Amino acid sequence: MSFDRLIEGIIRTQNPTVVGLDPKLSYIPEEIKADCFAKYGKNLDGASAALLEFNKGLIDALCDIVPAVKPQCAYYEMYGWQGVRALYETIAYAHEKGMFVITDGKRNDIGTTMQAYAAAHLGEVEIEGQTVIPFGGDALTVNGYLGSDGILPLVDVCEQQDKGIFVLVKTSNMSSGELQNLTVSGGDTVYFTLGKHCEMWGESTMGKYGYSGVGAVVGATYPEQLQELRDALPTTFFLVPGYGAQGGGADDVKQGFDEKGLGAVVNSSRGIICAWQKNGFAGKDYAKAAREEAIRMREELTEKIGKIG
Amino acid sequence: MSFDRLIEGIIRTQNPTVVGLDPKLSYIPEEIKADCFAKYGKNLDGASAALLEFNKGLIDALCDIVPAVKPQCAYYEMYGWQGVRALYETIAYAHEKGMFVITDGKRNDIGTTMQAYAAAHLGEVEIEGQTVIPFGGDALTVNGYLGSDGILPLVDVCEQQDKGIFVLVKTSNMSSGELQNLTVSGGDTVYFTLGKHCEMWGESTMGKYGYSGVGAVVGATYPEQLQELRDALPTTFFLVPGYGAQGGGADDVKQGFDEKGLGAVVNSSRGIICAWQKNGFAGKDYAKAAREEAIRMREELTEKIGKIG
Repeated sequence: MSFDRLIEGIIRTQNPTVVGLDPKLSYIPEEIKADCFAKYGKNLDGASAALLEFNKGLIDALCDIVPAVKPQCAYYEMYGWQGVRALYETIAYAHEKGMFVITDGKRNDIGTTMQAYAAAHLGEVEIEGQTVIPFGGDALTVNGYLGSDGILPLVDVCEQQDKGIFVLVKTSNMSSGELQNLTVSGGDTVYFTLGKHCEMWGESTMGKYGYSGVGAVVGATYPEQLQELRDALPTTFFLVPGYGAQGGGADDVKQGFDEKGLGAVVNSSRGIICAWQKNGFAGKDYAKAAREEAIRMREELTEKIGKIG
Repeated sequence: MSFDRLIEGIIRTQNPTVVGLDPKLSYIPEEIKADCFAKYGKNLDGASAALLEFNKGLIDALCDIVPAVKPQCAYYEMYGWQGVRALYETIAYAHEKGMFVITDGKRNDIGTTMQAYAAAHLGEVEIEGQTVIPFGGDALTVNGYLGSDGILPLVDVCEQQDKGIFVLVKTSNMSSGELQNLTVSGGDTVYFTLGKHCEMWGESTMGKYGYSGVGAVVGATYPEQLQELRDALPTTFFLVPGYGAQGGGADDVKQGFDEKGLGAVVNSSRGIICAWQKNGFAGKDYAKAAREEAIRMREELTEKIGKIG
C-alpha cells in the first residue's frame, strides 16, 4: 500500500495533477447529449451514457499527459444507479488507458461497514467462490470524523491490494474553518490533529518515495496551512483541491510540494473539463480544449516546482 | 422540511425504531441466494438480486409495525452498480409499503457537489425538461466535517421536497472520541459544537412536533452524551445507532427521548435482519424471525419511554 504508482505516473508525465471528472449535463456538448438521448431516451440511461462518452473523450485526450483522474461520486449518483454504472465504466476506461483513478467519495463509517466501502471502491468481493471487483479505484477519499475505526479497515484492504486513501484534513471551501480550525486542548487545531493521525495511520505502509499510502486532502485555497502541514507531515502525500475555479493559484499550491517536486497532486475539475466553454471552443473540440488547458496547467505548476523526481 | 412524516409513523406504530437494511450475503438464507444465482449467475447481478429479495421479505414482514428502514449504502456499493440498483429498488419497495426511508450514506462535500448529492438522494434531476428521481430517500445521513458549505445545499433541497438530514454528531463506535471528544477553545467538545450547529442549521425548518429537519446521529453506546445532547438540543431529532449488536440497551437509549416519547429513532440492523440466525430459525422463516425481534425491541423500548406522542 502506497502512492508509488501515482508518483511514478507523475514523474513519467512530469505533471503533478489530477483531472476531476465531475460531469454535469450542462458541461457536455450538445452533440454528445443529442446522440445519447436519441439512442437511450431522455432519461437516466441517456444522461448516464452522455457522462460516459464525455469522460471517454477527456480520458483519450489526457491519458498521455495527465497521470490520474478523480471521478466525484456525487455527479454519478445524481443520475441514479445508471450514473453509478457510468462511474464503473469510467474507472475501467481510465485503467485501460493507464491512468491512476482516485474515487472521490469522501466515504466514512465504522468496522464492517467501512470494510464494505473498502471492498466496494478499492478491493474485491467474493460471490460463491468467484472474486469480483465492484468498482476498482486505486485510491479513495475518506472522512476521518469517526476516528481510527473508520480508517483502519481501509488500511487493511489497501495493504492487500496496493491501494491508497486520502483523508480530509483541511478542505478548500470557505466554511472549512468552522470545525477544522477550532483549537483543541493542547493547542493544535482540529485539522492539524487529523493530519498527525494520517502520519500515524500510514506508518506501516511506507512506499519507496518516502510517502505512505494514507494521504491527506489539503486545499489550495489555504496556502499557509498547506505549508504548515507539508512541514509537519513529511510522509503524508497530499491531494490538493481548490486550484483554478475555487481560486488557488500555482504560488499557493507549491507549498504542498517537497524539494524534489513530490508530495502532492493538484486537482482541477471544471478548469479542464469545461475549458471548451470558457475558451470559446466548439462542442466537438471539448477534448482538445481540455488537453490545451491541462498542458497550460502543467506548465504553470512545473515552472514553480521545477523538475519532478 | 422536517421529520413530521417520520414522527407520524412513529406515533402510528408506537414504535420509535428504524430497521437497518445492511444485507451482507452471509445474512441471506441459502434458498434466496440459490434461486437468484440460478436466475442471474454467480456474479454481481445474482448477488444484488439476492439482496433485494431479502430486503423485500423484511419490508413485507415489518411495514405495519416499524415506521422506517435505513439502508446502508456501503452494503449495496459492495456489489457494484448492480448493488446500487438494488438500493434504488429497495427504497422504491419500502415506499410502496408506506415506510420512511433514511439513506445511510454519510455523504459530505461542498457547494455544487453537495447539491448533486442532495439531488441524488433526496431530490430530483432535470433531464431535457423531464424531472426524474434518482434514488428518492426521505432523509440522508451526512458528515459535517466541512462546515456549513456542506450542509446548507442539503437544507435547500430538503425545504423544497419535505425531506430531512441527520448530521453525524457523536457516533457509536469505540474510537469516536479520538476527534469528537476533543475540547475546543471555549470549553465545548467537538461533538457538542457540531450539535449546536445542527440546532442553528435547522432553525428555518421547524416541524409541527417541535423538531427541525436537521437531525443528529448520536450513539446509544454513549448514554451520558446522549442525555447531554438531548438537554442542549431541544429541536434536533436524533438517529440513535448502536443498540443491540454494538452494546447499547433500552436504558441507554431512553436518554435520547423527550417527555412525550419523541425526539429520537433507534436503529437496529443485525439484531433484526440476522435474528433468524441467532434465534435458531430456518432460513425460510427469516422474515418471521425479524418481525418477532422487532416486536420484542419495540416492547423493550416502550416499556422505558411510555406512550408516544
